[in-house]
Amino acid sequence: MRFGVLGTGTVGRTVAGKLAELGHEVRIGSRTAGEDTVEFADAAAFGEVVVNATSGQHSVEALRSAGAESLGGKVLIDIANPLDFSQGMPPVLAFCNDDSLAERIQSEFPDLRVVKTLNTVNADVMVDPSLVGEETDMFVAGDDEGAKGEVTDLLRDFGWKRILDLGDVTGARGMEMYLPLWLRLWQASGTGHLNVKVVSAG
Amino acid sequence: MRFGVLGTGTVGRTVAGKLAELGHEVRIGSRTAGEDTVEFADAAAFGEVVVNATSGQHSVEALRSAGAESLGGKVLIDIANPLDFSQGMPPVLAFCNDDSLAERIQSEFPDLRVVKTLNTVNADVMVDPSLVGEETDMFVAGDDEGAKGEVTDLLRDFGWKRILDLGDVTGARGMEMYLPLWLRLWQASGTGHLNVKVVSAG
Repeated sequence: MRFGVLGTGTVGRTVAGKLAELGHEVRIGSRTAGEDTVEFADAAAFGEVVVNATSGQHSVEALRSAGAESLGGKVLIDIANPLDFSQGMPPVLAFCNDDSLAERIQSEFPDLRVVKTLNTVNADVMVDPSLVGEETDMFVAGDDEGAKGEVTDLLRDFGWKRILDLGDVTGARGMEMYLPLWLRLWQASGTGHLNVKVVSAG
Repeated sequence: MRFGVLGTGTVGRTVAGKLAELGHEVRIGSRTAGEDTVEFADAAAFGEVVVNATSGQHSVEALRSAGAESLGGKVLIDIANPLDFSQGMPPVLAFCNDDSLAERIQSEFPDLRVVKTLNTVNADVMVDPSLVGEETDMFVAGDDEGAKGEVTDLLRDFGWKRILDLGDVTGARGMEMYLPLWLRLWQASGTGHLNVKVVSAG
């Protein structure tokens, strides 16, 4: 399958690498084309599926420059977090509570089939969940059931065995608002190779 | 030990019941004295330790009516969440991100030794963590190490074996912002008897 991965940071490159390893064709999109990257619009047009791994605070802007025409009605996997480091550490969320990045993207591009996932772990764990040492949970949220099904299949290819559907795109609020807790868990456990396992009596 | 539990909802009554079961003396505080409750100020004055189980959006107000004199430099265990149901379901947080209920309480009553804990599970699980079927994690956050130690001992009496210190009182931000995710996990798993186990390579 063809993937357009928007974002040239650690997360984008790690996911792009994993997709290539799985035999997919990948183009990495950036603001300006570089040695191994193309412009956002070209990466988005190339992909049958588009991955948003841009800095969350600026993702909507990046997607605007990719253009609604390139994005069309594709599945967009949103793995970004709207972290705002402008006030120093720890970062806050640029928006949250009754809003989320995934919702902003869905609302700006109503034809896109947005699925929020992977934003609750670091890049290494995204593509190798076994790193944390025990099966843990990955979440998906989005309005389009078919898109969630496709993304769930991809997550299984990444090694995820426990995938929990948190409902429509507003489920992204909780997934993004988990970040401040995740940052503290990172401090407390001394490693970014961490995740949570949901345990219930159900 | 003597405990003043502020709040007559399910959470307050469940925790008060458990404390009594453990052999502690407990008075439940309410806005107005009732059959088995006393006024906030009397419950706060009675307790060597005070538990805030009032509705989070109105906790600071409730503590003001308890009075700084009754609260003194006691340990205050803040188990409330500032949920705002005024916009309907799902609730949003009345404040969050660069703020939290525990911080507001600490800032309003600088002598109190505030420890945030237990707000990440429902009332049943607070006092019987075995209900979820596997050992899971409870978090504590607060500025006073001694107070966190006392609360950790109490949590062990409640049955908690995995207790993770998330640092100073600003750690409460992540614990409170976890609520929207927790509500979705409740929907997805079909039971409030749920919690997360933190798994890390560390």
